[in-house]
Amino acid sequence: MQGKIIPDIVERMNIASVTVGDTILTAAKKMADAHIAALIIVDADGMLIGIITERDLTQKVLAAGKNGNTTIVGDIMTANPDTLAPDDSARDALELMQTRGYRHLPVAEDGKCVSIVSIRDLYASVKEALEKDIEETQAFVFGDRYGA
Amino acid sequence: MQGKIIPDIVERMNIASVTVGDTILTAAKKMADAHIAALIIVDADGMLIGIITERDLTQKVLAAGKNGNTTIVGDIMTANPDTLAPDDSARDALELMQTRGYRHLPVAEDGKCVSIVSIRDLYASVKEALEKDIEETQAFVFGDRYGA
Repeated sequence: MQGKIIPDIVERMNIASVTVGDTILTAAKKMADAHIAALIIVDADGMLIGIITERDLTQKVLAAGKNGNTTIVGDIMTANPDTLAPDDSARDALELMQTRGYRHLPVAEDGKCVSIVSIRDLYASVKEALEKDIEETQAFVFGDRYGA
Repeated sequence: MQGKIIPDIVERMNIASVTVGDTILTAAKKMADAHIAALIIVDADGMLIGIITERDLTQKVLAAGKNGNTTIVGDIMTANPDTLAPDDSARDALELMQTRGYRHLPVAEDGKCVSIVSIRDLYASVKEALEKDIEETQAFVFGDRYGA
């Protein structure tokens, strides 16, 4: 698992975003429309300043009895989130997520979010890489023996 | 990855549950307290009749502009969900989840939920199994050569 976050795990993409003053209703609609579990928050210059996830919506809005139509993103977002760099290794990213319990991490470059990685993306990639390792090792073993 | 859902991937456990008449507020609190992303719905006899996830809360409550304090679980749950059996293979379960886009599946026995499996549990298990395969194969290869 020697890959880098970009381009081995994810590609650069436009990540759906909201601003601190948007309502939870707006944020939830964007997440539902895009079938995504996390949304980034950007300032007026497009700089990454926060993240919200489905878990935040469950815990900080619904479980708190708040009204999603009037509560704003700035009230519940995680400000200044940890980020990955495009060149970070997939292995380090997986360890960071496992250690801290994250399920999503934004990939930032010069303060802007250029992609987002989920722990599932990483697991899927680990699985693929390991399967390939096994295939290659087995091809080596059996190729060696059958050809002898 | 020859494991069975129980006991190789998860153990039997008491899964947090709600009933159809409970509010989303109650359900979200249970999910928040237990740090879980899915909750099962049981009838008066404790039989599994539905499931709700953080995604349902985002999409069917918040994105729909509904009030979580008055909306009830029965209005948004997925009724009669697909389930796994304890003896199902981890590989089949992962394929089912990848094919249908599920992130959680209840494990049912005689109509009752005896555990719940997340796609992350499965990925983590696949990763472990594949790593073990690689170690064993490499031990075989190098053991063979170094001993020759």
